[in-house]
Amino acid sequence: MQRSDAVFVESQAITRPRLGIIGGGQLAKMTAAAAAQLGCQVAVLERQEDFPARGLATHAVIGDWDNPRDLLRLAPLADVLTVENEFVDPAALAVLGQNHHPLWPSAATLARVQDKLRQKTLFAEAGLPVPRFADAPERDAVRQFGFPAVLKKRRHSYDGKGNATVRAPEELEAAWSKLDGDRHPLYVEAFCPFERELAIIVTRGQDGAVVCYPVVETINRDHICHVVKAPAEVSAATAARVTELAVRAVTALEGVGSFGLEFFCLADGSVLLNEIAPRVHNTGHYTIEACVCSQFENHVRAVLGWPLGAAALRAPAAVMINLLGHGDGPGAPRGLAQALRVPGAHIHIYGKTRSARGRKMGHVTALGATLEEALATARAAADCIRFGGIP
Amino acid sequence: MQRSDAVFVESQAITRPRLGIIGGGQLAKMTAAAAAQLGCQVAVLERQEDFPARGLATHAVIGDWDNPRDLLRLAPLADVLTVENEFVDPAALAVLGQNHHPLWPSAATLARVQDKLRQKTLFAEAGLPVPRFADAPERDAVRQFGFPAVLKKRRHSYDGKGNATVRAPEELEAAWSKLDGDRHPLYVEAFCPFERELAIIVTRGQDGAVVCYPVVETINRDHICHVVKAPAEVSAATAARVTELAVRAVTALEGVGSFGLEFFCLADGSVLLNEIAPRVHNTGHYTIEACVCSQFENHVRAVLGWPLGAAALRAPAAVMINLLGHGDGPGAPRGLAQALRVPGAHIHIYGKTRSARGRKMGHVTALGATLEEALATARAAADCIRFGGIP
Repeated sequence: MQRSDAVFVESQAITRPRLGIIGGGQLAKMTAAAAAQLGCQVAVLERQEDFPARGLATHAVIGDWDNPRDLLRLAPLADVLTVENEFVDPAALAVLGQNHHPLWPSAATLARVQDKLRQKTLFAEAGLPVPRFADAPERDAVRQFGFPAVLKKRRHSYDGKGNATVRAPEELEAAWSKLDGDRHPLYVEAFCPFERELAIIVTRGQDGAVVCYPVVETINRDHICHVVKAPAEVSAATAARVTELAVRAVTALEGVGSFGLEFFCLADGSVLLNEIAPRVHNTGHYTIEACVCSQFENHVRAVLGWPLGAAALRAPAAVMINLLGHGDGPGAPRGLAQALRVPGAHIHIYGKTRSARGRKMGHVTALGATLEEALATARAAADCIRFGGIP
Repeated sequence: MQRSDAVFVESQAITRPRLGIIGGGQLAKMTAAAAAQLGCQVAVLERQEDFPARGLATHAVIGDWDNPRDLLRLAPLADVLTVENEFVDPAALAVLGQNHHPLWPSAATLARVQDKLRQKTLFAEAGLPVPRFADAPERDAVRQFGFPAVLKKRRHSYDGKGNATVRAPEELEAAWSKLDGDRHPLYVEAFCPFERELAIIVTRGQDGAVVCYPVVETINRDHICHVVKAPAEVSAATAARVTELAVRAVTALEGVGSFGLEFFCLADGSVLLNEIAPRVHNTGHYTIEACVCSQFENHVRAVLGWPLGAAALRAPAAVMINLLGHGDGPGAPRGLAQALRVPGAHIHIYGKTRSARGRKMGHVTALGATLEEALATARAAADCIRFGGIP
């Protein structure tokens, strides 16, 4: 009797793990690839039939991630659910908890991050250095806050969308209109004269164990991540400070999974936490080739309750360059064969159906003995590739 | 008019590449992962619904790869077709050529390899050193050949299946019966007292360009690849000799794609070509983490007509250990979480539905400053994992 019970328990325990991802873009695609390597099945919820993670999903559920009924179509296909973006409606996500479907990061963590005013408040209360900020329910609150300032949407902003710089009072009305402040809750932040932007990926397990990737420098163009240099050329003290703040931030959120954190580095060497994404992040794509265990594999490990892998760099330097759409056109690039001629360039094409100006269509990572060498390799390949627009 | 023609040609040229793979096991899975990274769609033909490459295929065609009609169901889903194993019936494959569906390696290359007697003959005629061999249409041919000898099936043998050592005349009848020589064409080879076995992956492009991976040592257990050490601890002269012979062999076959070649290394340092697989190969799995461009990505590049990537090692040493089934049981392992605790172990679980004794269920790769270090890491992880059998 005891023996057959033991066998029963054993056979229950060794089924293939099933990961469900809410969202099916390139972040889901790279997460699914890591999950597949570890023998997981992957189910993905996405709005339309053709999406980047489609080819790597064992099951695709076509639906709306803000619709509780669609979330409940995905959930039974997975042992654990995770999100590809931070914009899923917390009210919709609540249905998962009510039906005992595990979700990591938790709905509580996501709610703390989604509202950027709430995020800033939580970080400030945790003693983390953030730019001065205030709620801006109406125009007067901005005037009282002072200028220059950055007016921001509290929700659904990314890649500079949802932000407007207000240098002086006479620019307020235009900014308010641009962000449609009468309909969307806004908040205001002090304009931060940063010297450069730093970022870091932190993965936190369900047991609270934390793995920190190297601190990197991000160079944005038109508010979109353009180049990531790993490691950032900063002092050991600055790198340690960023790492310490990042761990405190993810811990304050009770986060589980990989998180991307962006920092402002000021002229005096001090750093301010800018924002956090409760998910794998563009600034961590380099980890696929450059680190022992990528941000994607560690995210899978974290949400499935497995031990985390090592985040150490496998080369002295790595550079990632985003491949952004030049304009409308097909989702497949011109110039791929030429780019593949560049030795040491690791090329990722996301497989989106269409290109649009500024849309993230792929990326290139290169390793090197120095950042200059890695940058030259990555740029040589990236310069060959073009998505959409007039050739 | 000219302008719109040009635009038409352009838009035709930049569709997403579509790769079709005949066979859906772990080799197809890892090939599909490499293809997905480059933005390809992947269609797979496999016999049953659930197979390792299932989750990474954009399209799955369930059918028999020896059935021309099933091959013609796969072919329209792909721009280029390739094979996961060398056993597809050449008569069936002929239908692809008749219908102008590109196949790499070509049906001609596959036919030269599939019949091992023909393979040996071709290599001998090309001046490549191979063990002495002869056709063995009946028992007498073996007696005339002499002993000790190895009796082998001309077709459909792998991992030691289809081989029988015959040390003396009185062992011939048992070997003949074991291989069912009255029904399957056999040939005979001189027993080769090799000191160790070496292997190499060579990728050859459609333009004849060739990329050679490092020479590795393979340690077999029960005739199945068990451990691969990269690079092999051999003299530079031996490594150069193996590399030169491998290039000559793949060129003699007019091969396109990644090929795995196995060599016997004798006590006097000389090498003999043992056999070639016209596909990505178990002895090249280490290239995923250990080389700049893996055997899988280079196979995809070759069959799609793209430039090949660099095959250089990214670490001083790498070791791969196969995870073989201990017995019947589920396809998911016990001990995965413990194995994931080993820093630097890259764990691959193929996601087969069932384990069986000796079945390839996954593998572990580790890099290191030395082979000893890499072996210790890989073994520490592999020893945690168990597929099937009584715990």
